[in-house]
Amino acid sequence: MSYKNYSESENFGNDDFEIIAGGTITSVPEFYAASCHCGIKRSRKDDLCIIYTPLDTCCSGVFTTNKFLAAPVIVCKEQLKNSRNIKAIVVNSGIANACTGATGYNNAIKTIYLASKYLNIDKDEVLVSSTGVIGKQLPMDKIERGVKICSKNLSRSGGHNAARAILTTDKYEKEVAVRIKVDGNEDIIIGGIAKGSGMIAPNMATMLSFISTNVNIPDHLLDSLLLRGVDESFNCITIDGCQSTNDMVMIQTNSSSKIEIKSKNDKYFNKFKNALFFVLKDLSRKIVKDGEGATKLIEINVINARSKADARKLSMGVANSMLFKTAMFGEDLNWGRINAALGSADCYFEPNKVDIYIGEILIVKGGEGVKFNKKLADKLLKKKDITFTINLNAGKEKSKVLTTDLSYDYVKINSLYHT
Amino acid sequence: MSYKNYSESENFGNDDFEIIAGGTITSVPEFYAASCHCGIKRSRKDDLCIIYTPLDTCCSGVFTTNKFLAAPVIVCKEQLKNSRNIKAIVVNSGIANACTGATGYNNAIKTIYLASKYLNIDKDEVLVSSTGVIGKQLPMDKIERGVKICSKNLSRSGGHNAARAILTTDKYEKEVAVRIKVDGNEDIIIGGIAKGSGMIAPNMATMLSFISTNVNIPDHLLDSLLLRGVDESFNCITIDGCQSTNDMVMIQTNSSSKIEIKSKNDKYFNKFKNALFFVLKDLSRKIVKDGEGATKLIEINVINARSKADARKLSMGVANSMLFKTAMFGEDLNWGRINAALGSADCYFEPNKVDIYIGEILIVKGGEGVKFNKKLADKLLKKKDITFTINLNAGKEKSKVLTTDLSYDYVKINSLYHT
Repeated sequence: MSYKNYSESENFGNDDFEIIAGGTITSVPEFYAASCHCGIKRSRKDDLCIIYTPLDTCCSGVFTTNKFLAAPVIVCKEQLKNSRNIKAIVVNSGIANACTGATGYNNAIKTIYLASKYLNIDKDEVLVSSTGVIGKQLPMDKIERGVKICSKNLSRSGGHNAARAILTTDKYEKEVAVRIKVDGNEDIIIGGIAKGSGMIAPNMATMLSFISTNVNIPDHLLDSLLLRGVDESFNCITIDGCQSTNDMVMIQTNSSSKIEIKSKNDKYFNKFKNALFFVLKDLSRKIVKDGEGATKLIEINVINARSKADARKLSMGVANSMLFKTAMFGEDLNWGRINAALGSADCYFEPNKVDIYIGEILIVKGGEGVKFNKKLADKLLKKKDITFTINLNAGKEKSKVLTTDLSYDYVKINSLYHT
Repeated sequence: MSYKNYSESENFGNDDFEIIAGGTITSVPEFYAASCHCGIKRSRKDDLCIIYTPLDTCCSGVFTTNKFLAAPVIVCKEQLKNSRNIKAIVVNSGIANACTGATGYNNAIKTIYLASKYLNIDKDEVLVSSTGVIGKQLPMDKIERGVKICSKNLSRSGGHNAARAILTTDKYEKEVAVRIKVDGNEDIIIGGIAKGSGMIAPNMATMLSFISTNVNIPDHLLDSLLLRGVDESFNCITIDGCQSTNDMVMIQTNSSSKIEIKSKNDKYFNKFKNALFFVLKDLSRKIVKDGEGATKLIEINVINARSKADARKLSMGVANSMLFKTAMFGEDLNWGRINAALGSADCYFEPNKVDIYIGEILIVKGGEGVKFNKKLADKLLKKKDITFTINLNAGKEKSKVLTTDLSYDYVKINSLYHT
């Protein structure tokens, strides 16, 4: 197979959905949000928000695999075991409520009680999420004030404010919404927000994302779609390979569109899947773009691997190589560092079959450097978006990972910060 | 078990051996070396050396596990399969002869022929080693000139020059020698040299080490000692987690001391093992100290792990965490980043049983932060050598890894370098 076959393999049919201008999590009918500054952050920036729908929902979540689970992650997992009908999510920024022991756990539970009280819903219908400093306890008086204020101010236009309230050191809000046109019925809408300056904000290593939609879909199908979607989006980005104690991606659907997707054979299944995956990939790409110190967004495609696991390991290996990332910051086409990173991964390929491209320019053939148009390659290196394709010629599987370069600013941001 | 039991567990009995002032690889009787500038490096620095003994030897080597094996690594492995009697090692710096295909392989073979010719020894008795830029071919006319010059200039005092000739971007020579006193016979000497600015010198990601000694030891015993020694020394250091295509550690013994170590029960076995491990650890520590951009040498001790593999994974996980390394550069005691790094490793431990110490100060107890003497801890953080001990309270195994901080200079050195 030629290289060209792959570069466009991830096109989403434009027929499936359209992007909503200025879209966010409250672009979905019957979703409401509000945010406020309750006082966790020293700055005057908003630090608490509630995402809410009055309708019954089906909710699904994917959580960090880090062994040090933050209290809100533990509590969310327990809540979802009890009930998938989640009407409200309370999110605070500034303090992660991680490594906080029994007190931290009780504070997460207490937040759920507060939301249940002020929103007048069952405590089983609430989730909590936190991002910020590890090891500090939540100021529960401020949390109560924040929950009370947000409960009163919920609005259909509150999504953008919520997207801003969940940020820590992020430079900008990450939000998107798409519409799947439906004949003779209400359209399917998927909206989402996310936060994360990479997985790496100083001491706040957290990636959060909340998605809303309005289809009627059984929980097992929603679970499998979210799991696969996250695996192809949020699990395919890296800034520094550091994983958080608080990561979570949550989707709520309130069925308000009356469209039913009961199985993979249903009319709208594929369109919904494509639209959802687009939303997840769009938000995860926005996180990498906002990566701390990042001056470039770099796409590592490993193609023709023997297995999907091999392809992922190799693309992640290059994406996390400090030598490769510094070379990208220096705009030097140091392919030896790509080879060395590939060779150190624990998986199968034949070194003398490896071809490497920058953009569409072949720079390594059969594991050895080849002559190429240096001027053209240097032009690609100077761009903000750079794509490498590594053809292993070993099988049929592939993986795409997004990463950043490693700059002075990354070191600056992460070393100057003091706990 | 208390923490204190561990901090001194790696003491080497001073009765076993003594360090030789100014010792190097030619401190061992009947070992000779010479170096010269043959023209590979643009600077006038030496770029080729030969380590030589006229006596028959037993030689053992440990090589990189990177799949992109450099030509000299491939050739050394083939040579050692044929014969363990290695009298000469030719080492060049400036070009790694890696990812150079058939031409590179033939150049490595040709270097062996040249050394065999000018030293008048069998071609089976020669090894080659290279470090430097990946992807470039060796200039064989210059190599021939260098081999010719060095063959003529071999001397018993050439070890220090050899230690300098194998450097690339290293700041200083790494060498050591120790003496085991033997009653009524010639002493056992072990000498060694090494190179590597971490594993990370710009585009020259190589760690080389050559060890000489003079005991009579069978090859299988030498192999197992070297393998275990390397596992506890060179495999326990990291600068950036990047592994090289050229790494090798080689030991030659010429039996000149007449001391026989035929089995683990022999009188001098333990002393020899302790002295050899000391040499390997000393050289690997010197590599970390010279790590690019490093301002600190950080020791990560994981103790009371369920398995040795778990202990290694967790200590390496912390040692390679970019968030942890930048915090060290910033001299901030950000223990949340240690927790997050531990939690993301794929191995067994209970988060709420983890205790963490800086020096002997307890900073995390049962996975949560505790109050500690901040002034005292800050004093430790400002030192050049910092020790962390992570007690998993899960078993009896342990691992010690040496790493550096991550500084602006690391980014500078590795991004400003252009291929």
